[in-house]
Amino acid sequence: MTELYLEDFYVGQRFTSADHALDAQQIKAFAAQFDPQPFHLDEAQAQDSFFQGLVASGWHTAAITMSLLAKSGMPIAGGLIGAGGELTWPRPTRPGDVLHAESEVVEVRPSRSRPDRGMIAVRTETRNQKGDVVQVMTCRMLAWKRPV
Amino acid sequence: MTELYLEDFYVGQRFTSADHALDAQQIKAFAAQFDPQPFHLDEAQAQDSFFQGLVASGWHTAAITMSLLAKSGMPIAGGLIGAGGELTWPRPTRPGDVLHAESEVVEVRPSRSRPDRGMIAVRTETRNQKGDVVQVMTCRMLAWKRPV
Repeated sequence: MTELYLEDFYVGQRFTSADHALDAQQIKAFAAQFDPQPFHLDEAQAQDSFFQGLVASGWHTAAITMSLLAKSGMPIAGGLIGAGGELTWPRPTRPGDVLHAESEVVEVRPSRSRPDRGMIAVRTETRNQKGDVVQVMTCRMLAWKRPV
Repeated sequence: MTELYLEDFYVGQRFTSADHALDAQQIKAFAAQFDPQPFHLDEAQAQDSFFQGLVASGWHTAAITMSLLAKSGMPIAGGLIGAGGELTWPRPTRPGDVLHAESEVVEVRPSRSRPDRGMIAVRTETRNQKGDVVQVMTCRMLAWKRPV
């Protein structure tokens, strides 16, 4: 995929990533390391929880979304360097979900102080195989101007 | 640690987590799976990058912060169930950093429609051993009322 510079981005521009197939083993492995709560670790305990079944940590969904953007979803020249963002998880991610990321550029802003760069804001919906949105993330990312 | 219900939380309440020692191996392992970019994977290439050295993925910092909250930093009865939040990474996280999470309750709001629950908003600063803030996260989380 061609790498894109600040000048190449425009509001409304869209990108779609490849797919990631999620299973219970991945959910439990991430949770054991980063979010060791029963509804992310154990099917039986998850069944009796708020979620009524095993669900991925929201941070796992965020990390998978990052991997989709880094590998296929958002070709920023020089890499994806995020300054921050907002996240919501409108519904849980579950074993068997096949996730992909649909991104839209919502802001393009050249830096006032640094002529070699700017910032883009990208709204990314992470969707499962049914089209349900499991995460909405808006991230501000660095974008470099094309070298002259 | 005593688990806390909605009635136990108040604005200004503070929690401090245990520590997590981060090293290059952890940074590369997370990046290989979720954020495969040179500045997270390879010291030499990272040296020539924007970051001038190996840095953790921001999503790794977020995941470590979640682990600190889940294990020691935020004892919500029934678990930590996030609806979403905002993140910024004011400076990078690097190998050798020892991270901990300092949290403050910034909002407590009973549900209007569901008498058994409410929402709390928690602002969490992730700091390294020098006290530098590497992440600021404000999360909205579910909190249950104490069973009668």
